[in-house]
Amino acid sequence: MTKLLRQVFLEELGAVLGPAGLVSSDDAMQPYLAEWRGLYAGRALAVAIPDSTAAAAAVVRACAARGVAIVPQGGNTGLVGGAVAQSTDERPQIVLSARRLARIRHVDPDNYAITAESGCILSALQAAAAAAGRLFPLSLAAEGSCQLGGNISTNAGGINVLRFGTTRDLVLGLEVVLANGEVFDGLRTLRKDNTGYDLKQLFIGAEGTLGFITAAACKLFPAPNGMATALVAVATPDAAIRLYGELRSQLGDELIAFELMGQAALDLVSRHMAGVRVTLPGTHPWYVLLEMAGARTHGETHDALEQFLARATAQGLLIDALVAQTGAQREALWRVRHAIPEAQRLEGAAIKHDISVPVAEVGNFLAQATPLALRLLPGTRVIAFGHLGDGNMHFNLGQPAGLDRQEFLARWDDVSRSIHALAVGMGGSFSAEHGIGLLKVGELSRFRSPVELQLMRALKKAVDPDNIMNPGKILEV
Amino acid sequence: MTKLLRQVFLEELGAVLGPAGLVSSDDAMQPYLAEWRGLYAGRALAVAIPDSTAAAAAVVRACAARGVAIVPQGGNTGLVGGAVAQSTDERPQIVLSARRLARIRHVDPDNYAITAESGCILSALQAAAAAAGRLFPLSLAAEGSCQLGGNISTNAGGINVLRFGTTRDLVLGLEVVLANGEVFDGLRTLRKDNTGYDLKQLFIGAEGTLGFITAAACKLFPAPNGMATALVAVATPDAAIRLYGELRSQLGDELIAFELMGQAALDLVSRHMAGVRVTLPGTHPWYVLLEMAGARTHGETHDALEQFLARATAQGLLIDALVAQTGAQREALWRVRHAIPEAQRLEGAAIKHDISVPVAEVGNFLAQATPLALRLLPGTRVIAFGHLGDGNMHFNLGQPAGLDRQEFLARWDDVSRSIHALAVGMGGSFSAEHGIGLLKVGELSRFRSPVELQLMRALKKAVDPDNIMNPGKILEV
Repeated sequence: MTKLLRQVFLEELGAVLGPAGLVSSDDAMQPYLAEWRGLYAGRALAVAIPDSTAAAAAVVRACAARGVAIVPQGGNTGLVGGAVAQSTDERPQIVLSARRLARIRHVDPDNYAITAESGCILSALQAAAAAAGRLFPLSLAAEGSCQLGGNISTNAGGINVLRFGTTRDLVLGLEVVLANGEVFDGLRTLRKDNTGYDLKQLFIGAEGTLGFITAAACKLFPAPNGMATALVAVATPDAAIRLYGELRSQLGDELIAFELMGQAALDLVSRHMAGVRVTLPGTHPWYVLLEMAGARTHGETHDALEQFLARATAQGLLIDALVAQTGAQREALWRVRHAIPEAQRLEGAAIKHDISVPVAEVGNFLAQATPLALRLLPGTRVIAFGHLGDGNMHFNLGQPAGLDRQEFLARWDDVSRSIHALAVGMGGSFSAEHGIGLLKVGELSRFRSPVELQLMRALKKAVDPDNIMNPGKILEV
Repeated sequence: MTKLLRQVFLEELGAVLGPAGLVSSDDAMQPYLAEWRGLYAGRALAVAIPDSTAAAAAVVRACAARGVAIVPQGGNTGLVGGAVAQSTDERPQIVLSARRLARIRHVDPDNYAITAESGCILSALQAAAAAAGRLFPLSLAAEGSCQLGGNISTNAGGINVLRFGTTRDLVLGLEVVLANGEVFDGLRTLRKDNTGYDLKQLFIGAEGTLGFITAAACKLFPAPNGMATALVAVATPDAAIRLYGELRSQLGDELIAFELMGQAALDLVSRHMAGVRVTLPGTHPWYVLLEMAGARTHGETHDALEQFLARATAQGLLIDALVAQTGAQREALWRVRHAIPEAQRLEGAAIKHDISVPVAEVGNFLAQATPLALRLLPGTRVIAFGHLGDGNMHFNLGQPAGLDRQEFLARWDDVSRSIHALAVGMGGSFSAEHGIGLLKVGELSRFRSPVELQLMRALKKAVDPDNIMNPGKILEV
């Protein structure tokens, strides 16, 4: 794009967006271009920040007319570079931010539904639901800054998937600006609507490559009457899996979270996060953080969990357990779990994996992946934790002492390939909840069959024939 | 297709399928061509009944090579003509039946998953799950004859959607023969797998227009420890909705079914079904059949429901209620609900609607739709019943005395258009769970926007460019 054309294009965008909606100086663009772990350096012609669906559609039309590609962006908290702009002179790109599309349009407690714009912060949605006596169950570490549109575009998972499903399961309807600037208005709040192809499914988990989500209608659930949370020490991941099986059998769908954490992960938290401590005495190889919630009162739920844990202790399923007695104790338990990614960042570089396998295979995976990682990266520290109830483990490998950061990170591809191949060989996935973005484009083409890749390309071509939306993400350009 | 070419084509199919897998005489084809309500007369070159995915793929390749279209068929229990073949000399069609793809490949209780072929009868899947101590929650009136592949292709709903979602929510993975005869193998059983576009979503609810499903991996749930069922008499649909709101608030997700039935529907059952009777004394305008299930024991669940109903009676939310005391009593209550469609058939012709609206709007819909129906069809009998917890009502209009059956059925389109417009105007759907098939192709093009129709056509063209799979269903040819 010539300097002149760029100037004309920016004036076109400015006319649509006004001064508050267009950012084009290098300094002001920085927050939208940075990638929080420093894995990518972003580059963009401009950042467009529309405050209405109509303005977003006008931006897309202006871009389509000039052949400028669009990188949709929510809270910019992703882990695979899906929101990183890679503008070049030959193929200019803008960032299209949802930040000013932040209205909650309608909370409908009678119909257990909420309709909100895509730039809503997840914690604001949770709060709006709670204020109406309802639960919006999506919950993840970045909930204070991630946005609904990003959650939907990445089909976010988090800690309550085992009971409430991924974000896909929570979406009733979508409003999306398509690659040609037309608006797909599918904002219905129906539980059942079998009228042709379910178009909203296309855009969920598509990482912005098929359209720009401007609003969504989501399911709400009854606010739980009671809740109980426990930290449990176990000897092995297999013991944790047996505990999980017993819990689901005996307590059914009141179990809403079941997180596994290795001792090494908790060591990191103790070292780097002042005041965040595991309150169970002693040191144990593995910990489970589990939570129940449902129709029973706090007292009943608490009693049921205490009784279960007493039986499980007698059966030798666990080493020790601590049930939170107050809301503050519950918060303290979760703070440890949520602190792991930040503690990992403070510790130094890490090669991260986000694998899933069938739940019963998690122990088997860890037993094979750990020696494999140590063979590939002598001296690495294996930090394993994650959503055991979903078969989803974050298997992170810390920078070994004595290995330079860049040298270490240069090993990412070859180390990951082996870890991913192990998971895929067990019927698993090489990206359980983080998506593909830029980081795993190669892995997608490696691990998905030609039939699957061909179908994905056909979909992309059908919905975005000129490759305007987030080119190079998920599929190679 | 000339007689000679037909002969050659049938020999090709015969070579693939063997004598047990190919039906081409008019008599033997009849069960596959009949439509159970007599609304359509089917016509086909042949019925292909493969017993393996490879054989199904070979059939599709043979058809694609000869330009013969394929009508996928499961239990042939659908309500919109989606499995009706319409072969002509210019555009020959075969039926591709899943009947012999009936193996349960793997029940995996530890991973809460079941993998089965598409021709499995739904009740056989339920039984296999129960035998492993698990619940496969899809349940609907046709469960003794409908098949998994049909359930998935129509995104079937049924009585437990309010707790477990529609069939889409139950599918973990699919194996599908595509229109070019290639096989998409997506039979993973993962809870989380964000690796590019979620291709299985394409085929769920696509009514066989994008491919032929040969197998599926589905979610299982913990078998409930306790269950309680009640029949409740209420004065109005709005009273039932208030009761529903209270139930969900107080008992949370233990509520798994909440069905509304009008007195007229129960009259039909009494008249036509020997021994199927409502056991609540007296006659009331509306009845709710509700069921709770979850982690609590039978006794605890039963007590919780009794206490709730006592409170609700004191608050004037209901007229009378009966809690089933035995399994046999529970069966008797459900038998009444499930008998309604058959009683309706025995009563005579009916113009049927399968609408949904936001739950809180159901009373409003019924209050407007009933006088509208009586104005359009003087003397008709309104039979209203359905899944109130999902906002989904079956609103059926019986043949008025003195109006000829054919004359009555000829009114279907104009009557339905008004009823559907009313639902859609309330943010509702003109086909909540039955789909589009042949019956509602016109309604789809009337009620969906040009943007939506264009996206649907683009998807069809991307996945089935030669329109081999179930042409004329969902979208006009």
